[in-house]
Amino acid sequence: MTSYKIAITGGTGPQGKGLAYRFAKAAHTVFIGSRSPERAKQAATDIARRVGDAARVSGMENAAAAESADVVLLAVPYDGHAALVASLRSQLVGKVVLSCVNPLGFDKHGPYGLDIADSSAAEEAQRIVPDAKLAGAFHHLSAVSLWSDAELLAHEDVLVCGDDDQAKTVAADLARAITGRAGIDVGALRLARQLEPLTAVLIGINRRYKVRSGIHIVGLGHDG
Amino acid sequence: MTSYKIAITGGTGPQGKGLAYRFAKAAHTVFIGSRSPERAKQAATDIARRVGDAARVSGMENAAAAESADVVLLAVPYDGHAALVASLRSQLVGKVVLSCVNPLGFDKHGPYGLDIADSSAAEEAQRIVPDAKLAGAFHHLSAVSLWSDAELLAHEDVLVCGDDDQAKTVAADLARAITGRAGIDVGALRLARQLEPLTAVLIGINRRYKVRSGIHIVGLGHDG
Repeated sequence: MTSYKIAITGGTGPQGKGLAYRFAKAAHTVFIGSRSPERAKQAATDIARRVGDAARVSGMENAAAAESADVVLLAVPYDGHAALVASLRSQLVGKVVLSCVNPLGFDKHGPYGLDIADSSAAEEAQRIVPDAKLAGAFHHLSAVSLWSDAELLAHEDVLVCGDDDQAKTVAADLARAITGRAGIDVGALRLARQLEPLTAVLIGINRRYKVRSGIHIVGLGHDG
Repeated sequence: MTSYKIAITGGTGPQGKGLAYRFAKAAHTVFIGSRSPERAKQAATDIARRVGDAARVSGMENAAAAESADVVLLAVPYDGHAALVASLRSQLVGKVVLSCVNPLGFDKHGPYGLDIADSSAAEEAQRIVPDAKLAGAFHHLSAVSLWSDAELLAHEDVLVCGDDDQAKTVAADLARAITGRAGIDVGALRLARQLEPLTAVLIGINRRYKVRSGIHIVGLGHDG
């Protein structure tokens, strides 16, 4: 497995921090980004404590994190996503940019996918930074499972979509840190319109069955 | 497992016929509906030959099938879906109506979810027949797997959405005929906006990896 330098913008949120932990544990170099460098440093400390002395993880502002990395993971809430991406435009140009952003709403009927202008957060990021190499991935992993003691989330699959082969290859390769297997290439970036709000389905299941659900694709030869 | 009387409108298409086979095999009474009674009868004959003498399966026009059944499964192509549902309005009122309709498009970039007026085929059917008890289910099962010799598609899950508890219960129960397990209640009918086009993701995987993929939800205690 290639060792990557990954920035995680929004890396102090539960999803971002959980992914950062998994990437650091798999010997990638992780730059945790946040609006608050203090909170980013604290998250890095928390992760280093769990991973051990070999951990290469540090915390800083989002722009500095993106500047330092070869691969930038957008792990911010959808609210404010466009503004964040626009603010990082110069750091993202030419880089592999991965999005696990889930534009979701919640009301009395439960979770649902938001109806958004570019139809998906990943496509929105691509429109804002046309020269970035975008892929969507890592939408469906429970933050609690990511932060758990499980060596790997071996029952789960990471689904990857994108129009840039390099970005999809990096995302699929990084998935090994989480599931032990390459992520699954599902097709074009516009399929982020399906992958992002699928998280609403998983949250719906979690609420009804009191579980932490995840997605596994059967038929690829690694079934139970 | 309760024995149901199920009409399958569009039951001569690969998805409908495959589901009809599985339901007949599980000792439900199946009425295959089609615009062409001859093709419906032929499909019923094909299924009866596979299931054996105990099979309760017959073929007829869509309206007669829906009239005869307690549960009506809409398994028609999205093109023409609204007209078909409108034509069956009097047969569907008050009944449990299940939809596995997938509004998909295909172009040079692959499969994608269509942008449709009611946002999902299931919601469209509900709007056309407000008094039907709607649930969405059975979207993600490969027609080839359904028609295969496999005793059960035990690695796969049936995801069910709906606003009517009776309809969801029937759909979840019918899933036992296919997977050996109850279907998973994911939440409100509007989540059909996620379940229906998720099929585009599975078709994308099938094309890339030359497989027949399916969905399994992990975390519910029946993992490999």
